Amino acid sequence: MAISEFELIKKYFTSNDRGEGISLGIGDDCALINIPSEYELAITTDTQNEGIHFFKDTSPFLLGYKSLLVNVSDLAAMGAKPYCFTLSINLPDANEKFLEEFSKGLYSLSSKLNLPLIGGNTSKGPLSISISAYGLVRKNSAMKRANARVNDGIYVTGTLGLPAFAVDLGYRSSQICKLMEKLSLNKEYDSIFDHCYKKGMLIENRCSFSTELSRICSCAIDISDGLVGDISHILKASNVGATINIEDLPKPSEFSTYNLPEDYQDHLCLYGGGDYELLFTMNETNEEKLQKLSESSNVPVKRIGTIKNGSLELLKHGKMLDYREKPFEHF
Amino acid sequence: MAISEFELIKKYFTSNDRGEGISLGIGDDCALINIPSEYELAITTDTQNEGIHFFKDTSPFLLGYKSLLVNVSDLAAMGAKPYCFTLSINLPDANEKFLEEFSKGLYSLSSKLNLPLIGGNTSKGPLSISISAYGLVRKNSAMKRANARVNDGIYVTGTLGLPAFAVDLGYRSSQICKLMEKLSLNKEYDSIFDHCYKKGMLIENRCSFSTELSRICSCAIDISDGLVGDISHILKASNVGATINIEDLPKPSEFSTYNLPEDYQDHLCLYGGGDYELLFTMNETNEEKLQKLSESSNVPVKRIGTIKNGSLELLKHGKMLDYREKPFEHF
Repeated sequence: MAISEFELIKKYFTSNDRGEGISLGIGDDCALINIPSEYELAITTDTQNEGIHFFKDTSPFLLGYKSLLVNVSDLAAMGAKPYCFTLSINLPDANEKFLEEFSKGLYSLSSKLNLPLIGGNTSKGPLSISISAYGLVRKNSAMKRANARVNDGIYVTGTLGLPAFAVDLGYRSSQICKLMEKLSLNKEYDSIFDHCYKKGMLIENRCSFSTELSRICSCAIDISDGLVGDISHILKASNVGATINIEDLPKPSEFSTYNLPEDYQDHLCLYGGGDYELLFTMNETNEEKLQKLSESSNVPVKRIGTIKNGSLELLKHGKMLDYREKPFEHF
Repeated sequence: MAISEFELIKKYFTSNDRGEGISLGIGDDCALINIPSEYELAITTDTQNEGIHFFKDTSPFLLGYKSLLVNVSDLAAMGAKPYCFTLSINLPDANEKFLEEFSKGLYSLSSKLNLPLIGGNTSKGPLSISISAYGLVRKNSAMKRANARVNDGIYVTGTLGLPAFAVDLGYRSSQICKLMEKLSLNKEYDSIFDHCYKKGMLIENRCSFSTELSRICSCAIDISDGLVGDISHILKASNVGATINIEDLPKPSEFSTYNLPEDYQDHLCLYGGGDYELLFTMNETNEEKLQKLSESSNVPVKRIGTIKNGSLELLKHGKMLDYREKPFEHF
């Protein structure tokens, strides 16, 4: 017998970790939450669709984790502390094995963040996961795209490009197959894909780092569409330009392990999406504090450029590159 | 050339009506909102999928209206004043004609409610619309499913059953075609469907009525799954039973115009979904105040039964009916 919508919600999505400010969780027409008076509420929403944002055979566990992560990453980009979230899921059928693994992945991140699931809905349809996440940010301290100033340093957390490499591998285009053969990696293709895809999906969340960062930094974004695409959002909103030094981009160790060509590495770091690392600009006089925060929170941070007047310039050892590609577009 | 995601959002979904408490709307990683200290925030989310919640050829205008309405209806069910909303939309392609009409339908309701669109996303995928709506409710005054008490009267706004009749017509089952032929309505089938479907989609919102109602009533739900399904949620949450008098159910004038069989009318009112009217229970000593509110806000209200101990009883002229059907289930 098919499991009903209400039974589904009860079985897999009734969260016990009711947060302090949650007056009413799952089970009524709305959830009710309290916002402490010194805070604003940050709201974000993001959707993951099969075939667009993840491969058809992606593990449900990874999918549950990533679906929440992309939203939490938006909260981190504002310096907001995660508070609660809602989940809307379209399922082709009531596949309990899928739901069990999916909810495990979801809760593996939400428990870490002490983040209660306060509502949502399930519906029949092609697999699509839409999450809204809510965070608390001290009034007037949100990090915004419009706050970059000329001479600010430009910084990123973690490494760039691995998720994009995994996606390239996953598509198995003739180009990437040829490259892997040239690198004598074709026998290990599947295991390299599995390793990189899993690591690219199970990205560390930058939440606790970011709430501290917001004390010394007022401009940030998370890298979802690729570095060039996302820095462009900052430059446009702040009406400034920037210089990025490509040799300073933080690359994952896998790029040298697999001996990927340098051009391809640069391309993945500049244009690959799905990094979900923080990109931020800050007055460089705060670099010492940033260094301390990086060490105490165990989050690697690297300076990759400087905010300037004018437009965006990509420099490789001081020489300007003229290649520019479009960021990832959903249409 | 295909229109990009960013252009789409800018063209159709940048709302100018920034509300008073909205510190930051569309265009950053998160929206930021302020909650006045005497209020809680009510949060709801609902998804509309093609082929499940609406027919493939439904007018985009109606769809835009209805997608927001179902969420606003959940706010009304708590007595929350609509504050803002977010929209996540999956589109098979960047069909500008669709988007223009869809956004007109959406904004026709949001302008009426002075409700700003503060964020969201668009993605490629089978048509699916997921909206989250946010409302303000005075602390400790939300109407909840768990607050029904024995001897409370049971009331509904508006009329019941018309949306369900429209859906029956839309499916064109052999049963409904036979009925329409028997009623000599088969020649007008299409125009009757169009009339009922449009009226069933463009349902009045009950928001301003409901915020006033919450002063005299503490238990409500909106009728989305059908009267029997939704009263059952109240009874379960409040651990009580109820008597419903079927002859008191408020029927739309179309039912008598078309001479629908009485059994079928009753069935539509009891089990049909998508009414988005308010169902509430209240101490009957407040009936005079309710009558005044109904008149001043021009919202018809009808008493249809009484909260009792025990289980749910459906009475027709005092005689208990034994037919019970399952409410609308998504799986």
